[in-house]
Amino acid sequence: MRGAEALLRTLVDAGVDTCFMNPGTSEMHFVAALDSEPRMRGVLALFEGVATGAADGYARIAGRPAAVLLHLGPGLGNGLANLHNARKGRVPVVNIVGDHATYHNQYDAQLESDIETVARNVSTWVRRSSSTAGLADDAAEAVAVAMGAPGQVATLILPADVSWGEGGVPATPVPPAAPVVVAADRIDEIARVLGSGEKVVLFLGGTALGAEPLLHAQRVVEATGALLMAETFPTCMERGAGLPEPTRLAYLAEFAEMQLAGAQHLVLVDSKSPVSFFAYPGRPSDLVPAGCTVHELATPAEDAPGALRALADALGAPATPSQLRHEVVRPERPTGALTSQSMAAAIGALLPEGAIVSDEAQTSGLFNPGATADAPRHTWLCLTGGAIGQGLPVATGAAVAAPGRRVLALQADGSALYTIQSLWTQARERLDVTTVLYNNRSYSVLNMELNRVGLDGEPGPRAKAMLDLHGPDMDFVAMAQGFGVPATRATTAEEFTQQLERALATPGPTLIEAIVPPIM
Amino acid sequence: MRGAEALLRTLVDAGVDTCFMNPGTSEMHFVAALDSEPRMRGVLALFEGVATGAADGYARIAGRPAAVLLHLGPGLGNGLANLHNARKGRVPVVNIVGDHATYHNQYDAQLESDIETVARNVSTWVRRSSSTAGLADDAAEAVAVAMGAPGQVATLILPADVSWGEGGVPATPVPPAAPVVVAADRIDEIARVLGSGEKVVLFLGGTALGAEPLLHAQRVVEATGALLMAETFPTCMERGAGLPEPTRLAYLAEFAEMQLAGAQHLVLVDSKSPVSFFAYPGRPSDLVPAGCTVHELATPAEDAPGALRALADALGAPATPSQLRHEVVRPERPTGALTSQSMAAAIGALLPEGAIVSDEAQTSGLFNPGATADAPRHTWLCLTGGAIGQGLPVATGAAVAAPGRRVLALQADGSALYTIQSLWTQARERLDVTTVLYNNRSYSVLNMELNRVGLDGEPGPRAKAMLDLHGPDMDFVAMAQGFGVPATRATTAEEFTQQLERALATPGPTLIEAIVPPIM
Repeated sequence: MRGAEALLRTLVDAGVDTCFMNPGTSEMHFVAALDSEPRMRGVLALFEGVATGAADGYARIAGRPAAVLLHLGPGLGNGLANLHNARKGRVPVVNIVGDHATYHNQYDAQLESDIETVARNVSTWVRRSSSTAGLADDAAEAVAVAMGAPGQVATLILPADVSWGEGGVPATPVPPAAPVVVAADRIDEIARVLGSGEKVVLFLGGTALGAEPLLHAQRVVEATGALLMAETFPTCMERGAGLPEPTRLAYLAEFAEMQLAGAQHLVLVDSKSPVSFFAYPGRPSDLVPAGCTVHELATPAEDAPGALRALADALGAPATPSQLRHEVVRPERPTGALTSQSMAAAIGALLPEGAIVSDEAQTSGLFNPGATADAPRHTWLCLTGGAIGQGLPVATGAAVAAPGRRVLALQADGSALYTIQSLWTQARERLDVTTVLYNNRSYSVLNMELNRVGLDGEPGPRAKAMLDLHGPDMDFVAMAQGFGVPATRATTAEEFTQQLERALATPGPTLIEAIVPPIM
Repeated sequence: MRGAEALLRTLVDAGVDTCFMNPGTSEMHFVAALDSEPRMRGVLALFEGVATGAADGYARIAGRPAAVLLHLGPGLGNGLANLHNARKGRVPVVNIVGDHATYHNQYDAQLESDIETVARNVSTWVRRSSSTAGLADDAAEAVAVAMGAPGQVATLILPADVSWGEGGVPATPVPPAAPVVVAADRIDEIARVLGSGEKVVLFLGGTALGAEPLLHAQRVVEATGALLMAETFPTCMERGAGLPEPTRLAYLAEFAEMQLAGAQHLVLVDSKSPVSFFAYPGRPSDLVPAGCTVHELATPAEDAPGALRALADALGAPATPSQLRHEVVRPERPTGALTSQSMAAAIGALLPEGAIVSDEAQTSGLFNPGATADAPRHTWLCLTGGAIGQGLPVATGAAVAAPGRRVLALQADGSALYTIQSLWTQARERLDVTTVLYNNRSYSVLNMELNRVGLDGEPGPRAKAMLDLHGPDMDFVAMAQGFGVPATRATTAEEFTQQLERALATPGPTLIEAIVPPIM
């Protein structure tokens, strides 16, 4: 058996049965092995950033990693930004990077470069497989590392001759590290803090934002009056009627400071302590208010859902929270001008039960969380690492993971253009993805930032031109059609609502280009 | 003066007056400084790979580097593939990567990652500027390193506070390392080899493919009967009537072996010794025939044009070659089916004098060099590092460098889709780029490779599906229009010829989608 065949069988046996790929010559034996292992689904992407972002979206929804297959150092480079996002979101990805044959590296051929140095940017576990006999063992370990607590990007470098060689031996799956159970004394200590009467913020991230841990967090809130907050850009958050809605930390540090003002204790649950997204002249990076003590209920390596349950129990909270609103409440269908606000109303009015929202709407999405908080239950996926171009790939991967659920990609124009090739994979795989493309014809977030970085006076015209996406205006309807995705354009709230309703009921992918003014 | 202002002034004073950019918040002070330094032209790209590839194309034509401005580690990742190509082509690029403020790194904010480890993939010179006062000196050194012999990618990491800080001091330009003059005894030794009567291949790359060194190489050929060859994918080659056309080493190792068979001496001139692009089971990587001695007339750090002149002189060759054909010879305008061959005839029939060809036509471009060898003088730019997605960005940068010259991008479909966003920058900057898009609806080169990697029998349907770009077929006319570039579609040789003639005469960018069968 060739190495590639043993590799594929091992991946599938370990639960990795989907591979997003953009292969080249050095990966041809992996590709050929797809016919020897029909349980592995290969999904072709036109660009590596689509493959890596799709693997991220897939794992967030499936709860287990996909593999990606990339072509040497440049392929890894193209996939790096979305691997960065996966790393920051602690999402498991089995990142397979094909390389030249081991004996070919010395010749410094055109595509030769130092793959490992690039991989270190996103992976602490990097393994260059050196023998066909050992390849499957390396793969089993890669899967276990990726799935460990916390999830991570494990990079397996696969030389072509290791892949094509005979003598491959499938390996048995390696159990991933389970999340560590939080010790009772830490639970008790934090229960004491919560019972102190001081102002406490319960700050959730990562695995603490599933439905069950959210309900336990709500029990804590009802028992103690703590304020429930969440990190700015959650990896995967369950939302909707019957669930508590933590206040998400604002992206803008000045608003975040207001949200946290007066907190005496901050209890982190699978989350980093809040820091400013960027540094600004004269502003602090650390957002924890002076005099506030930071406690950590559960680290990313620990069992955050279990810790929340134990904490609620330790506080003597009733088994189920009683202050949640269970009925679905939706905004009215909007009329009139098409704005970020009227679009939010339409989305809130129409969001289907069980929907998955991939949110890279940036500034235009400001009103969407509020308008959907009491919608039917759904899942919300955010831009975890700040590397834009994640929304469309994540939507693509999420749809592969969840046939039968509608995926709604809320996508800003500037960010869409990093990985617009995602649309083709959506069309090819007939994925039920509805993309709402906010076309405000600017890098609106950067225009805002340009006014926040302490310039001397107004920015000049040459600077502003670098943040402006007019001239020429982009036509996303044409672009989508170019990639094989049917598309429409909306310029009023009525048009948008109608088009969205139709798109959400249409099998396969659709794109709606919404022409909106920048919100600031 | 802010650091960013001193930086821009220093770059321009050192001859770097164009910056291809895709900035974010941490780069806002660099962007704002564009209004303080009107000699610096900022060119916005929608994706970093467009910016880095454009800088490559710019430098190949301008003979001096452009700067690129990227946003932290993920931005560098997105730009890496085309920096790889620039590195392999020994093209100077001043690669500026914005970073968080120095004091912000410790907080591990969302966009924090190890930038240096990624930069090491493409740059041996990586400098993280640590003070506003020293920033301009760092920049002057970066320019000198980039422009040195050989050219390279110099990476300057620019923390936001170093950029925004007051106390910037413009620096005076640092002279780059000049190419080393080749010693007379090496010239004499190689002249003896050439005079020995044995079979010699003069193998040119890099700087040896300009018009003047080509003429000196031709003098050597006429004096000795040596065979003139060139590397497979030259960085920048002058071509056309009145110039010798070296035989380019074939991409496929089996053909390359035939080309080199019988050679007793291989004389390298600013070129690597020939190796196989990829490794294949049972085939050698080193393409130098057994018994052939390799000599190096000039390394990439040496003065290859001067060495060729000295060699011709040492051989007593007349000052100008006499066996070159000076009249322009063009193919007939083609009729009938649209194929790679008829397209080559149309291109040969119409290629304007002084054109710059950015060649990423891959398999579909097989006949183009032959059909244009005796066209009017023009410049040919190849995919130097094998990382696909270079053609459209290089065309974009070349057009920025050479207003008044027509740029013809010969572009395969699969490769186009890595950096299709280039079209928007072409439209925005009103660049005279004519893109010929070969739409054969497959990764044709990979289909060929799939049959060359020693599989057991025919590849299966699941493997073939990964190399197939049908389902859905892409519509490049729609895509181009989406990016603001007028486009047409050609399905016959007559249509293509007519459309190409019109496009070459139209100011600004145009795209012609040519529907062609795969050549194999």
